[in-house]
Formats: sequence, structure tokens, C-alpha cells
Amino acid sequence: MDTPRSPARRQGRPPTLPDARARILDEAAALFARQGYENSSVGDLAAALGVSKAALYHYFPTKQDIFDSIIVDVLQGLRDEVAAELAGAAGAHERLRRFMLAHARYFERRWAHFVTMLIGFSGMRTAYRADAARLRDDYEGLLREIVAQGIHEQSFRQVDVATAGRAVLSMLNWMARWYRPGAGDSAEAVAQRYFDLIVRGLASP
Amino acid sequence: MDTPRSPARRQGRPPTLPDARARILDEAAALFARQGYENSSVGDLAAALGVSKAALYHYFPTKQDIFDSIIVDVLQGLRDEVAAELAGAAGAHERLRRFMLAHARYFERRWAHFVTMLIGFSGMRTAYRADAARLRDDYEGLLREIVAQGIHEQSFRQVDVATAGRAVLSMLNWMARWYRPGAGDSAEAVAQRYFDLIVRGLASP
Repeated sequence: MDTPRSPARRQGRPPTLPDARARILDEAAALFARQGYENSSVGDLAAALGVSKAALYHYFPTKQDIFDSIIVDVLQGLRDEVAAELAGAAGAHERLRRFMLAHARYFERRWAHFVTMLIGFSGMRTAYRADAARLRDDYEGLLREIVAQGIHEQSFRQVDVATAGRAVLSMLNWMARWYRPGAGDSAEAVAQRYFDLIVRGLASP
Repeated sequence: MDTPRSPARRQGRPPTLPDARARILDEAAALFARQGYENSSVGDLAAALGVSKAALYHYFPTKQDIFDSIIVDVLQGLRDEVAAELAGAAGAHERLRRFMLAHARYFERRWAHFVTMLIGFSGMRTAYRADAARLRDDYEGLLREIVAQGIHEQSFRQVDVATAGRAVLSMLNWMARWYRPGAGDSAEAVAQRYFDLIVRGLASP
């Protein structure tokens, strides 16, 4: 709020609430993660932001739009950040490690958004659902491509690519259920241990 | 309802609704899994069961009691069934396989109960929460004990026991998010592939 903004960034936004969209989504995610979607009202959110409900409705016509936007935004951000992290790596082993660690770092930074995505049972509206499904598919596709690359390079065994992708994402995604930022290990440290485990396996050589 | 019951089974139960408790929980789990906890009313549940709301309140004073009971029951059933399955096995490798496959079979059979447990954001009441936490800890303890046994037997590497336990449960628990019974592979077949992957790892020998 008190960071100076260039005129370009202000353009088209009401002068009272710069960066409003991102701030609303951050505060809403924190609220939903804390007390659930159904138990959170637009009034609660407006109070938390210190603005009127009318100001919120200017950006998001309904609470459902806020919820849907959180999920689409977090999926988009996750994919972009992980893809950027992969850019400099060649082998499947290193690419898988970067994928898992970048995912964990992003998850920890946007923990409330991930928790909102996990608890979001009430369901997204159809318009957003297609976007979210496309982003999720892209992301899973990126991971499967790494596993397939490893098999092709013969650094990985001939595993079932879909199963391996699911296994990796299950470990990372389930963290939204038990991990709390700031309590114990970083999410990245957890992901590094998961990486070692899934690559080397439990069995003694 | 129309299955003949022995007099012993009827004892202490109102004559109008034999096996009422289990039937209520099954129907409630199906309802919660389908439309969410917050969106399901006791009236919806009574209608689905073909009984009055008063009849339901005889067994469960509140909707929250129904929800809490589903979670405690499914955790209790899971632990008992998996523990029974482990009884005949000796080595850690076979015990881990049985743990994962028995978990998956139980999950598939009681899918709606697991989904209810996963989506249950609104939170349990304190009295039940302690029971649920104890059951969950027991269950995780059982799995960790298998991993520790494998390390002791030297059939498993010197992995971090807590990480390995978390990884296995993450793969199995995340199935509540994507797996649908009757569409494709059995949950047991999925668990068998996860078992192969986590034991042998991705890397080529």
C-alpha cells in the first residue's frame, strides 16, 4: 500500500487500492485457510482488508470469483516458477530435483493459497474450472516429461510414467495437509528428502 | 432395512431402524462426499434415509457428531483391518506391501468416508479430535515400525523413518483427491505400483 508505484502500474486501477487484486487474493487465501471457505464471508474479508464490501465487489463480483481466482493464480504461478527453475538444467535427475524443490519453495511461500486449493470442495465455477484443469494438466505433463526423459536416458528404470508423476505430486501436495510454515524444517528440506527417497527407493542395493 | 435380523442384534436398538448408526454414517458420508459438509443439512440426510429428522437426532444430537463419528469410525476401521492383514507376515518388505494394499482396498470400499475425512475442513469437536489424533498416530506408528524393521533387517536403506512413512501415506491419502472407484484400475492395483516405486526407486541400478 505504501510502496511508490509508477503511473503505468496505476493505470486503470482505482486510486484508493493499488495492487488491490493481489492483496485481496492474499487476504482471502489466509482467511479461507484459517476458517474455511463456507465460514468466511465477504464482510469478514472486507474487514480484514480495511475496505468496504463495495470496494471488493469492484474487483470480484462474488466470493466464488475470489476463490476461483486464487486457485487459477496459484496454479499459474506454480507452473511458471517451476518451469523457470528447470530452464538451466539438462539431465532428468537434476530436473526432477529442481522440480520438487521449486514446488516446495513456492508452496511454502504461498501456503494459504495451496491450503485453499486443497480444501476447496465447494467446487469452482465452470468457466474457471477449464483454466484450472489446463494448468494442472500442463504441470503434470511437465513432470511426466521429466520421468520419460529419465527412462529414455536410462538414468531411471522403466517405471510407469503416470504412476511416478502421481507419486511425486502426491508427496508434494499432501504437504498442504500437514506442513505448517515456520514450524520445523523448510518445505524445501522436506522435498529434498522425498527426492532422495523416490529416486533411490527404500530397498537396500 | 429388509434383511432379517436375529433378536440378539436388535437388542437395545429401537425396532424401527436396525443397524441405524452404520446406515446413517454411510449415507451421510455419501452426501458429504458428493456435496460437501457445509452444503448438506440434516434434512437432506433424513430424506436420503427415508426417516424423520427426529429419528436421526435420536442417534446423533448434531450434524457435527455425525461428521466426527465418520472420521473416528473410518480411522478405527482402517487401523483394525490393516493390522489384521499384517498379522501373518514377517519381513518388512512383505509387511509394507500388505500395509499399502490393505489400506487401498479399505479406502476403495469406504471411499466416501475417506473423502469426507479429507474435505472435513470445518474441524472436529475437541472430544472427538483426541480420539482421531490417537488413531492417526497409532496408524502412522504402525507404518514407521515397519520401515524401522526394514532398516534393522537391512532389507531397507538407512532412510529417515518419518520421511518414508509420510511419503507412503501421502501417496495413499492423496488418492482421496483423484481416485474414483469403478473408473479404471482398482485402488489395490494403484497401491501395488506405488509399492514397487517406493521400494525400488526411480533410479536405474
